[in-house]
Amino acid sequence: MKLWDKGADIDTKIIDFTVGNDREIDVHIAKYDVQATRAHVKMLNKIGILTDEELKSLLPQLDILEAHTQNPDFFIEPEYEDIHSKLEAELTLILGDTGKKVHTARSRNDQVLVALQLYYKEQLQQIKARTVSLFETLMHLGEKHKDKLLPGYTHLQVAMPSSFGLWFTAYAELLIDDVILINATQDIVDQNPLGSAAGYGSSFPIDRQMTTKELGFATMKYNVVAAQMARGKSERTLASTLGSLANTLSRFAMDVCLYMSQNFGFVSFPEHLTTGSSIMPHKKNPDVFELIRGKCNKIQSLSTEMVLITNNLPSGYHRDYQLLKENTISAVETIKDILEIFDYAIGQVIVKEIDLNDEKYKYLFTVDSINDLVVEGKSFREAYQQIGSQVQDGTYKPEAGKNHTHIGSIHNPGFAEIKAKMRKVSTALDIK
Amino acid sequence: MKLWDKGADIDTKIIDFTVGNDREIDVHIAKYDVQATRAHVKMLNKIGILTDEELKSLLPQLDILEAHTQNPDFFIEPEYEDIHSKLEAELTLILGDTGKKVHTARSRNDQVLVALQLYYKEQLQQIKARTVSLFETLMHLGEKHKDKLLPGYTHLQVAMPSSFGLWFTAYAELLIDDVILINATQDIVDQNPLGSAAGYGSSFPIDRQMTTKELGFATMKYNVVAAQMARGKSERTLASTLGSLANTLSRFAMDVCLYMSQNFGFVSFPEHLTTGSSIMPHKKNPDVFELIRGKCNKIQSLSTEMVLITNNLPSGYHRDYQLLKENTISAVETIKDILEIFDYAIGQVIVKEIDLNDEKYKYLFTVDSINDLVVEGKSFREAYQQIGSQVQDGTYKPEAGKNHTHIGSIHNPGFAEIKAKMRKVSTALDIK
Amino acid sequence: MKLWDKGADIDTKIIDFTVGNDREIDVHIAKYDVQATRAHVKMLNKIGILTDEELKSLLPQLDILEAHTQNPDFFIEPEYEDIHSKLEAELTLILGDTGKKVHTARSRNDQVLVALQLYYKEQLQQIKARTVSLFETLMHLGEKHKDKLLPGYTHLQVAMPSSFGLWFTAYAELLIDDVILINATQDIVDQNPLGSAAGYGSSFPIDRQMTTKELGFATMKYNVVAAQMARGKSERTLASTLGSLANTLSRFAMDVCLYMSQNFGFVSFPEHLTTGSSIMPHKKNPDVFELIRGKCNKIQSLSTEMVLITNNLPSGYHRDYQLLKENTISAVETIKDILEIFDYAIGQVIVKEIDLNDEKYKYLFTVDSINDLVVEGKSFREAYQQIGSQVQDGTYKPEAGKNHTHIGSIHNPGFAEIKAKMRKVSTALDIK
Amino acid sequence: MKLWDKGADIDTKIIDFTVGNDREIDVHIAKYDVQATRAHVKMLNKIGILTDEELKSLLPQLDILEAHTQNPDFFIEPEYEDIHSKLEAELTLILGDTGKKVHTARSRNDQVLVALQLYYKEQLQQIKARTVSLFETLMHLGEKHKDKLLPGYTHLQVAMPSSFGLWFTAYAELLIDDVILINATQDIVDQNPLGSAAGYGSSFPIDRQMTTKELGFATMKYNVVAAQMARGKSERTLASTLGSLANTLSRFAMDVCLYMSQNFGFVSFPEHLTTGSSIMPHKKNPDVFELIRGKCNKIQSLSTEMVLITNNLPSGYHRDYQLLKENTISAVETIKDILEIFDYAIGQVIVKEIDLNDEKYKYLFTVDSINDLVVEGKSFREAYQQIGSQVQDGTYKPEAGKNHTHIGSIHNPGFAEIKAKMRKVSTALDIK
Repeated sequence: MKLWDKGADIDTKIIDFTVGNDREIDVHIAKYDVQATRAHVKMLNKIGILTDEELKSLLPQLDILEAHTQNPDFFIEPEYEDIHSKLEAELTLILGDTGKKVHTARSRNDQVLVALQLYYKEQLQQIKARTVSLFETLMHLGEKHKDKLLPGYTHLQVAMPSSFGLWFTAYAELLIDDVILINATQDIVDQNPLGSAAGYGSSFPIDRQMTTKELGFATMKYNVVAAQMARGKSERTLASTLGSLANTLSRFAMDVCLYMSQNFGFVSFPEHLTTGSSIMPHKKNPDVFELIRGKCNKIQSLSTEMVLITNNLPSGYHRDYQLLKENTISAVETIKDILEIFDYAIGQVIVKEIDLNDEKYKYLFTVDSINDLVVEGKSFREAYQQIGSQVQDGTYKPEAGKNHTHIGSIHNPGFAEIKAKMRKVSTALDIK
Repeated sequence: MKLWDKGADIDTKIIDFTVGNDREIDVHIAKYDVQATRAHVKMLNKIGILTDEELKSLLPQLDILEAHTQNPDFFIEPEYEDIHSKLEAELTLILGDTGKKVHTARSRNDQVLVALQLYYKEQLQQIKARTVSLFETLMHLGEKHKDKLLPGYTHLQVAMPSSFGLWFTAYAELLIDDVILINATQDIVDQNPLGSAAGYGSSFPIDRQMTTKELGFATMKYNVVAAQMARGKSERTLASTLGSLANTLSRFAMDVCLYMSQNFGFVSFPEHLTTGSSIMPHKKNPDVFELIRGKCNKIQSLSTEMVLITNNLPSGYHRDYQLLKENTISAVETIKDILEIFDYAIGQVIVKEIDLNDEKYKYLFTVDSINDLVVEGKSFREAYQQIGSQVQDGTYKPEAGKNHTHIGSIHNPGFAEIKAKMRKVSTALDIK
Repeated sequence: MKLWDKGADIDTKIIDFTVGNDREIDVHIAKYDVQATRAHVKMLNKIGILTDEELKSLLPQLDILEAHTQNPDFFIEPEYEDIHSKLEAELTLILGDTGKKVHTARSRNDQVLVALQLYYKEQLQQIKARTVSLFETLMHLGEKHKDKLLPGYTHLQVAMPSSFGLWFTAYAELLIDDVILINATQDIVDQNPLGSAAGYGSSFPIDRQMTTKELGFATMKYNVVAAQMARGKSERTLASTLGSLANTLSRFAMDVCLYMSQNFGFVSFPEHLTTGSSIMPHKKNPDVFELIRGKCNKIQSLSTEMVLITNNLPSGYHRDYQLLKENTISAVETIKDILEIFDYAIGQVIVKEIDLNDEKYKYLFTVDSINDLVVEGKSFREAYQQIGSQVQDGTYKPEAGKNHTHIGSIHNPGFAEIKAKMRKVSTALDIK
Repeated sequence: MKLWDKGADIDTKIIDFTVGNDREIDVHIAKYDVQATRAHVKMLNKIGILTDEELKSLLPQLDILEAHTQNPDFFIEPEYEDIHSKLEAELTLILGDTGKKVHTARSRNDQVLVALQLYYKEQLQQIKARTVSLFETLMHLGEKHKDKLLPGYTHLQVAMPSSFGLWFTAYAELLIDDVILINATQDIVDQNPLGSAAGYGSSFPIDRQMTTKELGFATMKYNVVAAQMARGKSERTLASTLGSLANTLSRFAMDVCLYMSQNFGFVSFPEHLTTGSSIMPHKKNPDVFELIRGKCNKIQSLSTEMVLITNNLPSGYHRDYQLLKENTISAVETIKDILEIFDYAIGQVIVKEIDLNDEKYKYLFTVDSINDLVVEGKSFREAYQQIGSQVQDGTYKPEAGKNHTHIGSIHNPGFAEIKAKMRKVSTALDIK
């Protein structure tokens, strides 16, 4: 049954093409559609469109339906276009005319919109929680391995000493930036669009403040045209934010893959976390980190897709918007999996002993050597020339590195400060 | 002179290729390089690397140099690679050995980084101010034209009544989301990276808290590896945020271009704001809005460029990062111009009379007609069928539209509420 | 069973994460995996690795398996990682040791690669055929409606006369460019990678010329490292080419949606091709063209995804490449659907009568008026000024337009020439 | 002077915003504008719009102007909007009314379009030539170092033996694919758009076949609407093609940077090709290859920009198209520089001795060992298990690798075949 059925036959080819895979995707937003419908019918009762009896008959049915959506086997039958058709049909089947009245003063446009925004809001909360959990794992690893030096590279050339303490907590600190963006994205999706109907509101005296409160939104998107235009803008923002988080994870995964190479040999993982080759029996491949990297890179392309779908379209709803949800929901589910597996796998990392006396690392301490000369009174540029000459003529001899004392340096990564910063950001109150 | 000159001849071809257009680009960040240098030398004095006399001789020279950078004719001479070489060379020319000492305990990597972040921070402030100004212009236009109805479209088909009040303020309300992202981006760039040197800190006992305070940063990027990795991450975040704002502006520009078409005829502009054609004497083209749209669309592609440059690179500095600044700075300067011209041009918009009795708009009020039946007691679905039949058999007669009362609707766009939301967001205190 | 199983337990979490949805995707390439295996075993027989008896027992089993893959209900059971594991397991189950020998001198890397390239090659052929079919529909529409004028727009402003003949055949002619790119992409995928094994070839004296011929490839990717690097490069090229075709279709769909708007009213479609609204009974929405536009826009973002997955990765296989196939195959299947539905729907377009005497179109003929003056001896610039003055003071009177005679103009779109060009391009012989 | 000046004052702000940097960009296309103008005036003479005397006075002036455009100091004065205004103004200054007549039967739209396509066509020729030159350098290096083995990696793990012969010629063979795309792009831009005027042709009886022949185009874009829509489509295609070439170069540059790392130590470069660090005197950084990589990555984002500017715009010219040329021309000029410097630098590569007996490479030959067992009669899977057990319990002993004989393998990269393939592709005749 189509919600907009008006008698005329619609072409089957056209139906197949237009319905697409909404039925599979909508399983993710089913719960939120019921929740928004509950708030909507309460409001319709308040403004006199639904009687108290009608409301009384609707609410328990909505509870049952919401419970159904949480069943792992929940699915949308082929006779429905999407979750919204199914919901209305089931209410009507049980409650007759009362079920039909539910769609008063709303349109499928704002019904989809509000369900998606509730979904995004709750998912962002989960993504934030998993990001904080990964942060803690990384901070813990940094503290555990803080005294182990690691060659630091610039231009992929051996440069200056780094440390495992620095390496693990660098990515931890970068995750704080990602949480800042998650917070901002939550502020953007935490605005009730319900009541915008087809994008131009309703002539019924609906009470949008009430549904805003019922649904726990921080505020509403007041202007109904703006509410409608959140389609695309929410997804684009979410995609950028997931892309930022994915960028942090992807780059860490690249480091892991490189450091696991025999030519670096800085870290390894227990055999049960690696995979083999169909022709090389010696291989212990970091597939899990390669797939994290690859999946994160896919996620980084999502914002381009979101922009391309909506760009240069005049205001007002277009059916193209129906295509926004598929890959956004897929990215949300994927990033949650990635965060979980990353946390799980990195927690089992084996930090290896690195022989910094190896010939290839001998220039690791030239800057420390220069700085020693500076402390003795030379200008930096002169000291640079002196050590440079030694390097040039082969007389340079590295000495054990100096102790680095400043905050954020190899011997003092700033554990407490970084943790405090994350605490502040991850518990930030909504700014609206 | 190259900062890293160590005697051997470097190939001219290589130099030309590697220097690129840094000299032109760096004019934008020159001021911030001097400011960061001032904070750095004060700190070097505090930790005993520079004497009081040396500091006393340096500070006035830095003031002079900062003033130079503000001169509209300021440029970087061909003998320097970039602003950083020029700055050090000029200090050394005047102050000799003292000038050479300035580079102690820093690297060109953190020097560029801190200058860029200071630039981004100040520019975001300006972009926010111009966004708020445009917001106010749009709110004013919305209030001025609030009683004028406009056909609302879905699928580009005549759908339901909208209003100029709704239209102008819809884009205003969307700008609030963009300001939320600007705020988040400011939080991300407002973290001092100075002291990260080449990406692994310094063996000198530098005082990063002091430079953080001197430069007015809200906090610092503690971990020096994380600080270094802000290269790319800052630009990617900034690009996404500018892209979000550009998306709002681009879509508004699309509406303007469409509504100026003779087939819509909803708005026009004074002749001095339009441009003509080289072969058609009657043309009054909306070039300014087309170029706003096009330039905004270019800006929306910037984040892809930023990701592509940095993606899959292991941690640690790579020369590729030098390429991040060109188009980021160009986008920053362009969006400021766009905001200014948009504000200027839209302020002069002429809202035209629209004859809603025209045949093509006759179904604009079908939903209102349905709602009337619902108020009389029909279910929405039944009322929909009844009006649908009238439309089908040609007997439908539109009536003057109903008054829409709810917040955000055509007769009540929610001016005060939207303004209050922007006020809250645009004056939000730094969350760190 | 994992092909690379070497006894140690692999973590279930890791397996779930790494297998992903290969089982669903691989259904599309199953047939090609069997075909490539057939060529491989024939070659192994030729070089003495498989005996004649072994070959004789293998070939009929491969025929059976290939037939299975063509069964609409064909699927890959959960006990297999992917199609390649299933194929080997089934051969081994039936043929014992002989089945195990099949994997000699190849790796899963080149097995996937060759199957994908055979798939791409065949699909491109189908896409080309459907493109040519759409081309013919559009040429037919152009010829059918060649005498009907249409307002031509620049800057979305009424500009000069156009014609339906021009409009339909413009998109037809643009499709020729897309076919040129399809041809080039075919040349690129039509190079046999089999024998590259894990990316470094094999120490067996395999005969790659033989498999190249058996599989009908035009040539081979000789260098095995280059063959391996075709992963990503093939997908990126294919994505760009599908994106180009999608761009043509998307822009046509935009025109259709705009021209169906009541404010243009240039075309319409039979009711069974349009869809309605859940709240507005009068709506006949062009959902099919909106979804074509949206899906085409998604496809246009694919090349960015392909680049992001592979970019900055050193040479040699990475597991990330496993992620390339999902959305590429999805785009291939989608574009075939789009081409079919587009062809089907546009064929039913209703071209409406346009009243060019309507006030809003009165300046459509100013350039013709100017040209008349030029023919009488005025310079173009003077004639432009004269007609411009008439427009300015309201005295301009349009006359019936002139007949346009040159090739490609409104009265002479160049049907024969465009058809000849497509014929030449679509039947072009392989350039290798 | 504006070509479309019609008396009314245009706002200075608007002019500054709309003119942009056309004056700088247009220097690149100036020559082609003169060439197209020459063809146009000859045609105008043929159809009787220009007299023989007028033509005779115009041609020498056009020769002079074309010579001017080739002067390295050629620039466009601030009083002109762009090259087209300058050209017309200068002709009019010298020749009076005759100069004014030149613009008859064309519009700035097709004037820009034809100049750009002539530019693209010629540049693609140059890019192809430089690509072939780089190909030859790589083939030469492959032959020179063909006997030197190199560890081959999969998943960045030591996998199987590769060779310098394979490595250099792998990228050479990939360049052949890029040349295939260059050829296709040339076919696409090699279609004359002149005569499409503002996008709807002309009422003058212009002779487009004549200008097509005069300008050396292989064919024409017949349909004038299609010709106009080549704006954007040409740039998108060109951007994808340059992106493909950039992808090959970028990945090679990544390999170079990695192989120069002390942890690999496979190649190095003479000191004059490397750059130093402002704080580390030992550094010999591969900046040139990092910048090649970064610049190539920027170029890979260009096609997204091109799509974003044009996407979802209805047919007909929009001013947005003026923004397409800037970054396209910039990418063209950049890729030419990159090809030149790459060719120059890689030609000086120093291939280092690699000790394959080093502990970290000991499993490089396991597949060869397995294959030996297979030759002795074991199935591949059994041999895999046997060598796998030796690796597992530490008893595996590598033997000197086997000789690889098949085409494309480490001892037989297929030099002659790859060269023949490039020869065929690079000299392919135009398919139209």
